[in-house]
Amino acid sequence: MSYRFLKGHGTENDFVILPDPDGTVHGDLPAERVRALCDRRAGIGGDGVLRAVRDEDGRWFMDYRNSDGSVSEMCGNGVRVFARYLHEHEGADLPIEVATRAGIKTVTRAGDGLFTVDMGSPEVLGDTKVTVDGATHEARHVSMGNPHAVTFVDDLAEAGTLLEEPGYDPAVYPAGVNVEFVRRVGEHHVEMRVHERGSGETRSCGTGACAVMVAAALADDAPRGTTYTVDVPGGTLRIEWTEGDRVLMTGPAVIVAEGRSDL
Amino acid sequence: MSYRFLKGHGTENDFVILPDPDGTVHGDLPAERVRALCDRRAGIGGDGVLRAVRDEDGRWFMDYRNSDGSVSEMCGNGVRVFARYLHEHEGADLPIEVATRAGIKTVTRAGDGLFTVDMGSPEVLGDTKVTVDGATHEARHVSMGNPHAVTFVDDLAEAGTLLEEPGYDPAVYPAGVNVEFVRRVGEHHVEMRVHERGSGETRSCGTGACAVMVAAALADDAPRGTTYTVDVPGGTLRIEWTEGDRVLMTGPAVIVAEGRSDL
Repeated sequence: MSYRFLKGHGTENDFVILPDPDGTVHGDLPAERVRALCDRRAGIGGDGVLRAVRDEDGRWFMDYRNSDGSVSEMCGNGVRVFARYLHEHEGADLPIEVATRAGIKTVTRAGDGLFTVDMGSPEVLGDTKVTVDGATHEARHVSMGNPHAVTFVDDLAEAGTLLEEPGYDPAVYPAGVNVEFVRRVGEHHVEMRVHERGSGETRSCGTGACAVMVAAALADDAPRGTTYTVDVPGGTLRIEWTEGDRVLMTGPAVIVAEGRSDL
Repeated sequence: MSYRFLKGHGTENDFVILPDPDGTVHGDLPAERVRALCDRRAGIGGDGVLRAVRDEDGRWFMDYRNSDGSVSEMCGNGVRVFARYLHEHEGADLPIEVATRAGIKTVTRAGDGLFTVDMGSPEVLGDTKVTVDGATHEARHVSMGNPHAVTFVDDLAEAGTLLEEPGYDPAVYPAGVNVEFVRRVGEHHVEMRVHERGSGETRSCGTGACAVMVAAALADDAPRGTTYTVDVPGGTLRIEWTEGDRVLMTGPAVIVAEGRSDL
């Protein structure tokens, strides 16, 4: 078993972590290895790989790959797990600035096993429509760096099986869209399901939860600085849209195993 | 991270192995721990757990649990993986006699990464019918200790999505049935899909592949001692029904990771 790995998750969005401080273990990390590691039956299993490598400035870089081997910019659930790994296994101090392909992300501790990541500023881009199971729903177009359509429903069952991609306006979303279905649970408390483009329904989507919080705060006319509780199928996130126009997402990060592999 | 584990698979039927030679690590192995380990997102992920514990005679016992935590008697794919682990990680000699809840199973090496397990004698129990996607198919009732209905089709697509359990005669199968759909690929060569009772469609089912081989050999009037190649979605098995009325299944066993967990 030739190299180290860890497995962890944030609200059941799960990752294989590959320690590779000086980049000599995995080189440019071939897509085939990522696919082999993420294979849930022939491999270890994960939604993606988080390779931990230091950049020229000595800063930890989160080299994030999707389970199909493709490169991805950022992952809000992944960066919390990444920060916990760096703190507990590599001796990094908190708060920690994590380099990502979407820039530096600052992660702080928010309690026992809870971490907060600054997800940046949202862009609110007007209204649109999505279609699921033959029914058309009004939706809010929000960008968190990636595109979202947030639609409020009375019952999350209205989203149906989500085995097929919801319909959307390709003029609004030329590169596809993540679609969130949201139900109000109580004051500043919502629950959601999400269909991620390219992945189907998932247990959690960090940027999706942030887009949902922004759409809910706008619909509620909630003052900036209000914190929302957002229940996703895989757990609970707490999200604040600050007076400084930043979205701060707080949620769990769990490391469940460490070991060695030769996949 | 308090205890050892390994992860492995046989034709993509995957397992978390828990070394526990003297039974002091996991005690009676609570169902909650099995479920936590097998959870594919919050845990390590697997179709089941293989706990390795020595019995009073010093023989290795395969304490097999389904992913829901329930106890199971035997698993033809699991016992190959178990034997490989015992040989390579615990120094056990091959062939090895593995104690299971279904009795002693002898596993031998059959080549590089290939292992053969004696699956015992089949029972051929007549004809029956199964229904899928509104179509009724003739099927052969074969028991490999557990019940199977084997049906031959011209195209595996006739099995449909297999998201729902196929219909069967509850008078023939009072405890449910595993249903195999089989297409002939060439002489002594078939491919199959399987709906396992309680699990849905899986990548592989060891007893199902054996039942399929028996039904095919009967349909072909093949002499005992003929070896069939059985392609399952997760790989390939080679199966012989011997003159001594034993079914010998040969297939891969792979260990992909080892490490520690505290789930």
